[in-house]
Amino acid sequence: MRRIAFLGPVGTYTEEAALQYDSSADLQPFPTIGAVGLAVSSGVTDQGVVPIENSLEGSVTFTLDLLIRQSGLSIYNEIVLPIEHYLLARPGTRAPDVEVIYSHPQALAQCREFLERCFPQATQEASLSTAAAVTDMQESPVPAAAISPKRAADLHDVVIIGQNIQDNPNNVTRFAVLDKVDHPMTGNDKTSICFSFKEDAPGSLYGALGEFAQRHINLAKIESRPNKEALGQYIFLIDCIGHREDSRVKEALAALAGTSNMLKVLGSYPRWQAG
Amino acid sequence: MRRIAFLGPVGTYTEEAALQYDSSADLQPFPTIGAVGLAVSSGVTDQGVVPIENSLEGSVTFTLDLLIRQSGLSIYNEIVLPIEHYLLARPGTRAPDVEVIYSHPQALAQCREFLERCFPQATQEASLSTAAAVTDMQESPVPAAAISPKRAADLHDVVIIGQNIQDNPNNVTRFAVLDKVDHPMTGNDKTSICFSFKEDAPGSLYGALGEFAQRHINLAKIESRPNKEALGQYIFLIDCIGHREDSRVKEALAALAGTSNMLKVLGSYPRWQAG
Repeated sequence: MRRIAFLGPVGTYTEEAALQYDSSADLQPFPTIGAVGLAVSSGVTDQGVVPIENSLEGSVTFTLDLLIRQSGLSIYNEIVLPIEHYLLARPGTRAPDVEVIYSHPQALAQCREFLERCFPQATQEASLSTAAAVTDMQESPVPAAAISPKRAADLHDVVIIGQNIQDNPNNVTRFAVLDKVDHPMTGNDKTSICFSFKEDAPGSLYGALGEFAQRHINLAKIESRPNKEALGQYIFLIDCIGHREDSRVKEALAALAGTSNMLKVLGSYPRWQAG
Repeated sequence: MRRIAFLGPVGTYTEEAALQYDSSADLQPFPTIGAVGLAVSSGVTDQGVVPIENSLEGSVTFTLDLLIRQSGLSIYNEIVLPIEHYLLARPGTRAPDVEVIYSHPQALAQCREFLERCFPQATQEASLSTAAAVTDMQESPVPAAAISPKRAADLHDVVIIGQNIQDNPNNVTRFAVLDKVDHPMTGNDKTSICFSFKEDAPGSLYGALGEFAQRHINLAKIESRPNKEALGQYIFLIDCIGHREDSRVKEALAALAGTSNMLKVLGSYPRWQAG
């Protein structure tokens, strides 16, 4: 049975994504994105699932930094999941009595308008994850609610007092399946790379994009991350359409390797298709 | 006296930056980055200070999204501040007795190695800000500590039990001073813009960067943000060297306006120079 590490605890959106990817796998929660990466690169598990990009918040920077820095890790697949926030409470709790609402600060922010409209008197408290919010809510001395994925309602003795409470309906998260190797060519693939330049990075970026444009390779994403050495020095991340074994992509990567200071192929993998 | 809104509460790094920018101003804390923006655009205050980029974490996405979307706001100046995390406790607390450590999740993450080495037995609890962590620590039923800026130690009855506890010494944050208008030309300026394209964004980005490269205009930063309508559609943000009134920058912006779907100049302002 395939062992898959995921960013835990159980009851998070990442567990939902992992279940959707392979519901028959042995799913194992790990406490941080870095721990999932280590589980995969060390062979403790076969694969790992971590969030990589949200349609409202942008990239999950921990995941990008992990892929940039850790060796022995590739992107093997991607999963796209709509994010639907639920409001959970202890059985018997009435919505008007709720005094405190727990969640991860990002989930609280994504439901700000809803909370102002429906729970103007409730105070908001930070939890370490949307799953931890359920425990915080259950232990609260006053009537409380937690913003969590639906999955958390399946795992705990709670009732759903609100559903799809996020302010923006276009809330979708992309997850990466990590493995020691990337995916064989399927004919409908994407390739993720990162690269940097010794100096004059933004001028060089123009040249780098040219290697793709000249070969009519479409880019799906471009991102920059600080190189963590000095403000204003960046590592660039690009997702392009095609597999790294496709001849045009292969040529572009070879050209880029000649002009960049560092080039790392993070993986080629099938493009997500809504089921 | 100049009234300056800042991302509060008092005792945060943003207050430190505002004090460094103008210690004689009437500094007023606001609860969110959006509230600071509204204070400035509505004339409640003359200016506002918000974090925009950290050398380890990358961009502060709330601030980028505010600049992209809210009208009547320009970047008037920038401030660069080293981030030095302190460990604060109630007077009389001994480090070996500390059972809980409070802070914003980002600050906890930036001190992870330090906490694992020096406080392996302490549990970590999330607070809504590094300033709120001090209150959480003061109200803790067990011996506790808070990761906070030094400024918080000046404002509360606490002792410093650790200083410069961040794992990476290159931890620097850039803050933006917001105003209704941007800064007159000084001869050593930067200009921040954002823009988007109707379709084929990454290919178009190549053309956009060309407008700057052809005119020998250096770029200091490039970033992308989701447009919040669909996964994979982006708004690009660029900082270029020069003032928007400089003839070459003016030409590049005019050319870009002709090919982009949306172009907004976020402001021209003097480049930060370490004092």
